[in-house]
Amino acid sequence: MTTTQLYSEIVKKKSFLSIGLDVDLDKIPPHLLQAEDPIFEFNKAIIDATHNLAVAYKPNTAFFEAYGIKGWHSLEKTIAYINQNHPEIFTIADAKRGDIGNTSAMYAKAFLQDLNFDSVTVAPYMGKDSVEPFLAMQDKFTILLALTSNSGAFDFQTKDAGGKELYKQVLETSKTWQNSQNLMYVVGATKAEYFTEIRKIIPDSFILVPGVGAQGGSLEDVCRYGMNDKVGLLVNSSRGIIYASKGEDFAEKAREEALKMQQQMAHILG
Amino acid sequence: MTTTQLYSEIVKKKSFLSIGLDVDLDKIPPHLLQAEDPIFEFNKAIIDATHNLAVAYKPNTAFFEAYGIKGWHSLEKTIAYINQNHPEIFTIADAKRGDIGNTSAMYAKAFLQDLNFDSVTVAPYMGKDSVEPFLAMQDKFTILLALTSNSGAFDFQTKDAGGKELYKQVLETSKTWQNSQNLMYVVGATKAEYFTEIRKIIPDSFILVPGVGAQGGSLEDVCRYGMNDKVGLLVNSSRGIIYASKGEDFAEKAREEALKMQQQMAHILG
Repeated sequence: MTTTQLYSEIVKKKSFLSIGLDVDLDKIPPHLLQAEDPIFEFNKAIIDATHNLAVAYKPNTAFFEAYGIKGWHSLEKTIAYINQNHPEIFTIADAKRGDIGNTSAMYAKAFLQDLNFDSVTVAPYMGKDSVEPFLAMQDKFTILLALTSNSGAFDFQTKDAGGKELYKQVLETSKTWQNSQNLMYVVGATKAEYFTEIRKIIPDSFILVPGVGAQGGSLEDVCRYGMNDKVGLLVNSSRGIIYASKGEDFAEKAREEALKMQQQMAHILG
Repeated sequence: MTTTQLYSEIVKKKSFLSIGLDVDLDKIPPHLLQAEDPIFEFNKAIIDATHNLAVAYKPNTAFFEAYGIKGWHSLEKTIAYINQNHPEIFTIADAKRGDIGNTSAMYAKAFLQDLNFDSVTVAPYMGKDSVEPFLAMQDKFTILLALTSNSGAFDFQTKDAGGKELYKQVLETSKTWQNSQNLMYVVGATKAEYFTEIRKIIPDSFILVPGVGAQGGSLEDVCRYGMNDKVGLLVNSSRGIIYASKGEDFAEKAREEALKMQQQMAHILG
């Protein structure tokens, strides 16, 4: 997918909502546990109920790996289901990988080629040669961690690093890497006041924004400071949508929560 | 496993060698490709041939994930094989994970509990709450990236961060985290001259040292600057050992390469 196609979907759906598929068997409706693949059944129902309200789905790989081979199988089925039935949806493997060059190339193959996600989240700590193998994949996107939504973001990311904060150093340095046009960035909604500064460095890039909902970030603030003339935001909610109900109505309730967010987004876009 | 047990194995085997199991189907002996699970067959043969020369095995998860479910299955079989047959061996899931707290807890479950590795490598970028869920696991170790072996290490890790280089900030800050006694660190062999400074901050911790062999680091230099009175080093070699031959003699040749390293180590431990 290209960013032009993504923008066109945002305009069409009046939504820049990403839904996080972080499926914990302890939190899904108990009646699904009888299914052969409860994680996939849960995801399928969520996707069926919300796909016209969201422009992206973001499965977090941790929640699949926690169930071993069964979990990996659920991940394969989930991404295949989206790609087959909703090819217009932007897919994000929230994997936060990053390793030396030949190893990052293996992760890029796994997520962007074999599983065929449109994008993957990557940690910047190991620098250029750990990220460029992901960037080399055409029409695929590497979503680099810049300023994350958690409290630990203040441990290192906001520390002054050579005259500017580390996350700014990450933003600026990453722009010099090969195929940097394939970069997007993670900036947490809980850090909305930082968006103005961030937009000075990366005015045109898409930013994936976790932390609205369960983590407490404000959609209005994120949009006020972070939106650009092509929207440039994918605002993610995971737990606030997918765990709206633990009953048989879970998909319907998830749709209601997604609709609330989509309506707020339509209002902002309007 | 405890560090006391690990140290006792090092003394017994006169070795602090870790062997990286980074299995690429394009690089293993062609005759193995007929096997039902070539990756596991390769690993099993390498382990059988080298287990009395090495104190640790380090499968890199990227090389398994690159083969999807089959790869994950090979990883499960490999770690189970080591745990069943060589419980004295220290096992490292080289996964370089790290995410917000509830997600890191899922990764900790996957690698330290379900797969039952002794340790897992973790990236520090997201700070305290992304690492502490790993540290909470008793008698398990979190190997935090500090100064990596690749060239990209100079992009951010060595940048001045509030009066000291970022990797030093990572070392110092991590010591304040809960259960920090369960920390080990990654420092690349290609950065041997940094070990003196690093040992001032973490005199007692074990350091996992990749980058000897294919990446060009020197064992002598690493030991000169990095060894402490309990050895405190796990020096890893991957490609230099496991791909010593592409013939039917691959395990024997891998053993020869491992033996060379073990003999150098025995001499140093002397």
